[in-house]
Amino acid sequence: MITFVGGLNHVFRRSTNGFRKLTTVIEENKRWKSNVGFVGLGNMGIPMAKNLLKNGYGVVGNDVSAKQMKFFRSLDGAETADTLQQVAESSDAVITMLPESQHVLLAYTALLKSSKPDQLFVDCSTISPESSKKVSDMAQQKGCKFLGAPVSGGVVGAENGTLTFMVGGDESTLKEAEHLLSCMGSRWVYCGPAGSGLVAKICNNMILGMTMAALSEAMNLGIKLGVEPKVLASVINTSTGRCWASEINNPVPGAVDKQSPSNNDYQNGFKADLLLKDMRLGESLAEGMQTRTPLTRQTVDVYAHISKMGWGDKDFSIAYKYFKEQQS
Amino acid sequence: MITFVGGLNHVFRRSTNGFRKLTTVIEENKRWKSNVGFVGLGNMGIPMAKNLLKNGYGVVGNDVSAKQMKFFRSLDGAETADTLQQVAESSDAVITMLPESQHVLLAYTALLKSSKPDQLFVDCSTISPESSKKVSDMAQQKGCKFLGAPVSGGVVGAENGTLTFMVGGDESTLKEAEHLLSCMGSRWVYCGPAGSGLVAKICNNMILGMTMAALSEAMNLGIKLGVEPKVLASVINTSTGRCWASEINNPVPGAVDKQSPSNNDYQNGFKADLLLKDMRLGESLAEGMQTRTPLTRQTVDVYAHISKMGWGDKDFSIAYKYFKEQQS
Repeated sequence: MITFVGGLNHVFRRSTNGFRKLTTVIEENKRWKSNVGFVGLGNMGIPMAKNLLKNGYGVVGNDVSAKQMKFFRSLDGAETADTLQQVAESSDAVITMLPESQHVLLAYTALLKSSKPDQLFVDCSTISPESSKKVSDMAQQKGCKFLGAPVSGGVVGAENGTLTFMVGGDESTLKEAEHLLSCMGSRWVYCGPAGSGLVAKICNNMILGMTMAALSEAMNLGIKLGVEPKVLASVINTSTGRCWASEINNPVPGAVDKQSPSNNDYQNGFKADLLLKDMRLGESLAEGMQTRTPLTRQTVDVYAHISKMGWGDKDFSIAYKYFKEQQS
Repeated sequence: MITFVGGLNHVFRRSTNGFRKLTTVIEENKRWKSNVGFVGLGNMGIPMAKNLLKNGYGVVGNDVSAKQMKFFRSLDGAETADTLQQVAESSDAVITMLPESQHVLLAYTALLKSSKPDQLFVDCSTISPESSKKVSDMAQQKGCKFLGAPVSGGVVGAENGTLTFMVGGDESTLKEAEHLLSCMGSRWVYCGPAGSGLVAKICNNMILGMTMAALSEAMNLGIKLGVEPKVLASVINTSTGRCWASEINNPVPGAVDKQSPSNNDYQNGFKADLLLKDMRLGESLAEGMQTRTPLTRQTVDVYAHISKMGWGDKDFSIAYKYFKEQQS
């Protein structure tokens, strides 16, 4: 089985010799003395760190934004550290959730200066598999343990603690990290050695972007030809065209009753610019492997246009509105 | 509600004055004297007509192939007619299931020469909405009732009587046709006036083709980068990339345990050439509406290449094999 469901009764406890070990605990609700460092207190990082606090960890946060640091300090059980060295020093395990490859590489250069042997690092950022492998090597050279574990589930999943982690690294390290992951998500999939979690995540998001563009293209055509959005969505969602983009995040306002971003002026979803970033990571991987990805190419073009139009902050399902307003 | 589920206890009975009327019946299993004409006894037509026979209808079949006609005559309750005029004369309702627009137009030109007022015609072929509207007009001029009702579900759905019909035409005509449809399928969706069923079907199949190409592209990349096919499929099928193409018809051999065509050398599925035909119908609709469909364009290219390589008879999930063997 490649899927391990959370809910184990292990937590990290700070041990006297500075090493962490897994301890089976009975009282899950008690606040433990072990500290987790959390680097990157953004839209995803804050709710993930909150879920660690809720599960009894002390969390030492760090972010480049003073505003985010101030907000984080106000939470019960939360502390902040001004430097990444301090985060590494005062924590048993460190989680990072940063925007792009260069931020992760810089952060680990600093973190690993004060790391302790066997210290656990889990990077949840969506970056290139190559960068993740590089960080993994850096951590290994310092005798530390590292997982590249990007997530799916978005801000809602982060808030509800229902993220899925796509994990690359040593399987034994995943075992050690299971309780931490179970506080922030509901599921993890072991994908293989360092970088594999990122490959899986990027491939999934490439498909997500392409299916959204495909759906937007075809629904725009069908609606222009006179079929009601609800009827068309019903046909697709019960036929062979069905996909997450159509069932859960349908891009046409009113097509599904769910609280999809399209029913809310494309707000509060997965930003088009973030999808574009992931699609470009995919395109760059494909170039490196001399692999043809013509639909990825088209989808990057669509979202690059959307970004140019100033819609990069809107939910990526805005592709429908883009096609609707375009003429060939 | 736009969805009407089958199972009504109405059948057509031949009435003495040559008109059919709906009669509520009690004994569903008795063979009724009413005849249904069935034009197009191919891979889809034969199992659909068989399900009508099973439900007590006499079926008068016609096909251009003498071999198919001979096979059909051997079935209990089945007859054949050598001309389409004879089919129309000896039937209360006529179902057509033909390959392309020109076959449907030709067939109806002949059928309507011997049609009776109020006679019901249901065309299940996947053709252009324009052709379907034309046939609908022709039928109306003869005082007949017509539905354009293309299906989804493929040969397996036709055999198991679990097809979905996407129905365009008068809603009152659909009411009359419900029992006939319920013998061959498990569901129908009323899509709107003449041609609407075709628009919905074509849009669905455009999405199907694009998601299959997208999935094949991304899975090929992920597997080349070292992620196991089963792991990658598991990530996608439980994340935002999930789609029918991935869950049910995964293009990578061994990626899912299901009896997908990819696990059987891409045999016995939805032929790549038939998908190409549907994608081209979509492309032509988009051109007529000056609507941009860049991913459709790429997908047509992919399947046109697949066809040129001599793989047109294979299941359309062979797109994965195509990408695997291509280099950029």
